Amino acid sequence: MSYKTVRGMRDFLPEKMKKKQFIEDFIRRVFEKYGFEPIQTPIVEEFELLSAKDSGGEAIKNEIYYFKDKSERELGLRYDLTVPLARIIATNPALVKPFKRYCIGQVYRYDRPQAKRYREFTQADVDIIGAKTVLADFELMQISCEIMRGLGLEFKIAVNNRKVLEALSLKMGVKKEQVTDAFRIIDKLDKLGEKGVKSEFKEKKIDERILGQIFINSFKEVKEYLKDTEALEELETLLTLSKENNLNEVEFDLSLARGLEYYTGNVFEIKLEEGPSVGAGGRYDKLVESYGGQDTPATGISFGVDRLYDTLEETLTIGSNTDVFIVPLSKECVSIAFNLASKIRSADIGVEVDLMQRNIKKNFEYVEKKGINFIILLGENEIKENKFKLKNTQTREEKEFSFEDVSDLLKELKN
Amino acid sequence: MSYKTVRGMRDFLPEKMKKKQFIEDFIRRVFEKYGFEPIQTPIVEEFELLSAKDSGGEAIKNEIYYFKDKSERELGLRYDLTVPLARIIATNPALVKPFKRYCIGQVYRYDRPQAKRYREFTQADVDIIGAKTVLADFELMQISCEIMRGLGLEFKIAVNNRKVLEALSLKMGVKKEQVTDAFRIIDKLDKLGEKGVKSEFKEKKIDERILGQIFINSFKEVKEYLKDTEALEELETLLTLSKENNLNEVEFDLSLARGLEYYTGNVFEIKLEEGPSVGAGGRYDKLVESYGGQDTPATGISFGVDRLYDTLEETLTIGSNTDVFIVPLSKECVSIAFNLASKIRSADIGVEVDLMQRNIKKNFEYVEKKGINFIILLGENEIKENKFKLKNTQTREEKEFSFEDVSDLLKELKN
Repeated sequence: MSYKTVRGMRDFLPEKMKKKQFIEDFIRRVFEKYGFEPIQTPIVEEFELLSAKDSGGEAIKNEIYYFKDKSERELGLRYDLTVPLARIIATNPALVKPFKRYCIGQVYRYDRPQAKRYREFTQADVDIIGAKTVLADFELMQISCEIMRGLGLEFKIAVNNRKVLEALSLKMGVKKEQVTDAFRIIDKLDKLGEKGVKSEFKEKKIDERILGQIFINSFKEVKEYLKDTEALEELETLLTLSKENNLNEVEFDLSLARGLEYYTGNVFEIKLEEGPSVGAGGRYDKLVESYGGQDTPATGISFGVDRLYDTLEETLTIGSNTDVFIVPLSKECVSIAFNLASKIRSADIGVEVDLMQRNIKKNFEYVEKKGINFIILLGENEIKENKFKLKNTQTREEKEFSFEDVSDLLKELKN
Repeated sequence: MSYKTVRGMRDFLPEKMKKKQFIEDFIRRVFEKYGFEPIQTPIVEEFELLSAKDSGGEAIKNEIYYFKDKSERELGLRYDLTVPLARIIATNPALVKPFKRYCIGQVYRYDRPQAKRYREFTQADVDIIGAKTVLADFELMQISCEIMRGLGLEFKIAVNNRKVLEALSLKMGVKKEQVTDAFRIIDKLDKLGEKGVKSEFKEKKIDERILGQIFINSFKEVKEYLKDTEALEELETLLTLSKENNLNEVEFDLSLARGLEYYTGNVFEIKLEEGPSVGAGGRYDKLVESYGGQDTPATGISFGVDRLYDTLEETLTIGSNTDVFIVPLSKECVSIAFNLASKIRSADIGVEVDLMQRNIKKNFEYVEKKGINFIILLGENEIKENKFKLKNTQTREEKEFSFEDVSDLLKELKN
């Protein structure tokens, strides 16, 4: 009998989890430096919420973990962090605005499992609720650049605007009722290629002149088409602020449509120079209202932590949390070892004590495998003479300290 | 239409989540100082695993979220963090020992919701795998005391030993095949009272003389009964080490049985002076084997983060992550405001920029609500004169700085 993880889900053992946690901690610290505060919502939500019309609709049932509890309540595992946020905003109208929240947590999709696509994965979302200015969108660009640069990744942030795309589509003969379909098809450009997109346009009887624009993709030309419209101003302000603040990774991309219906203004996607999209978002000014809340502007971006992890797995190295390993060489030394460990930890230094009562050779092997820098062997001699040696496991250098006054030892370890 | 959380589950909005996160971060830091490393396992597991005989058995179905996926696979939400750990150890025999891991994550039980009992709650588990010595049990006591003291809580840690309890039960006339039942009943002493326990003993035809011992509860007397047994040595070493290391909160309690069948040696429970149990654990040397793994000694303890949160909610106060709030007073100042914010953040100081383009009064109200210490107003004058004022929002004191050299500003803020 050998047990496995559920299909499409994975374990993170320490070597992996330390890297994933490093990424999550880094993202969290950036979010906090911009004044965002954490929330946590349940992983299980009512199906009624998950299937509300502006998120997935009833059809979402096929793409999520859906089930009934023992009282026949229809439930599901959340498939993103935006829907629970919309629920909170809709039901808590008194929250101070701007409401700047972040959330790092697992979400679930019943996709067909493939390489690098998981049924359980972690998202790190940051959203600004209540601010209708482009400044909020821009702050998301600043945050994204700080995170991606900080993680040492080469990337671009494609930005576009749904109003621009819509105005342009209408100008190019796409009918109003076809606009959503047109966006959905354009969004698949990477997957389908130009030919595939054209044939889907033909199938849906959508005027394909808009595609000419998308492949030209010059902001100058788009500006001429849409002079003095609100749509243009949102996008232009975002691009100008980005340029003025040296966010050179931010680039206009008219082919970026973002499939989700709820986007209303600027949309963004973070793409690795080589590899997949690792983050995406946009403005969704109508979503909260559609969940029964007040008319509330909102914008946000979501980072795919698993995508970032898969990208960084090979290059990240995380050291040991433990600096010192203490070996009591006989029963009489055990309490003294634990006591010394406590004193060192009180200076916020990581210490392990040999819990296996193994011999010196085995302990040195363990220390090497774990990458622990210092070892202290405590035997009867050490206790009798009230002195012990701190040995550097790399250089084999030794220094002597006394049990009574550990301040010298702490100074040495803090160096 | 107003959406709610699933029955028995709750949201943590920022004010609450900051406190919960503080508790989790604190626990994590203590775990790491003892050399424990993180793992993460999926929240969804195969029902076959969750219902294995040494954890819950088939009957667990009634107590958990059980469901089938679209391929009719039987799944469930994990109800603890120990079963997934046992799966990992059983299927990864080559992990370096001792394997010291921690895991902080949500678990799910389909209990009847009551005050302070949730269907989704967070556990913080720390386990030592591969060490059969009592030193490992003792390290868990050290960790528990450091966490509970660090959180400023009054507590006791009750300890007992399953072998001691079993040997004593047998001596007192409990039949071998009744021992498990006897433990389960003793474990309900807090709930049922002496009378209730006696009547359950009678019902199961268990010799009730053991109860006399439990109410005497003196380690000295127990020692006389069980002179020179292995059982006694485990417990005695744990109590002695605790005393020698000033863990005076650790107390022998013969009535502590811990219902779970998988415990094999020392067992522990952390109890608040006033209030519920906030942590529990013990040695489970046979569990990994029962999941198909090698014979592997193991010991661990689990902290109830929600219980700790509910206890500390009223007394904990967490300050703002943001130290400075910058208000651009006109469009021309927006980029300069974002740029200044960036420079301050690069010194790891939290900064918010007004994203709402509100008036000064509204911004001061926001800053007060959020508890932000400093505010900078940037208007055309500031830009013309290349100087701006940092205003302390408490003392109303102002200091002037220039845009070019922010080092003085950073020094001031780091004070």
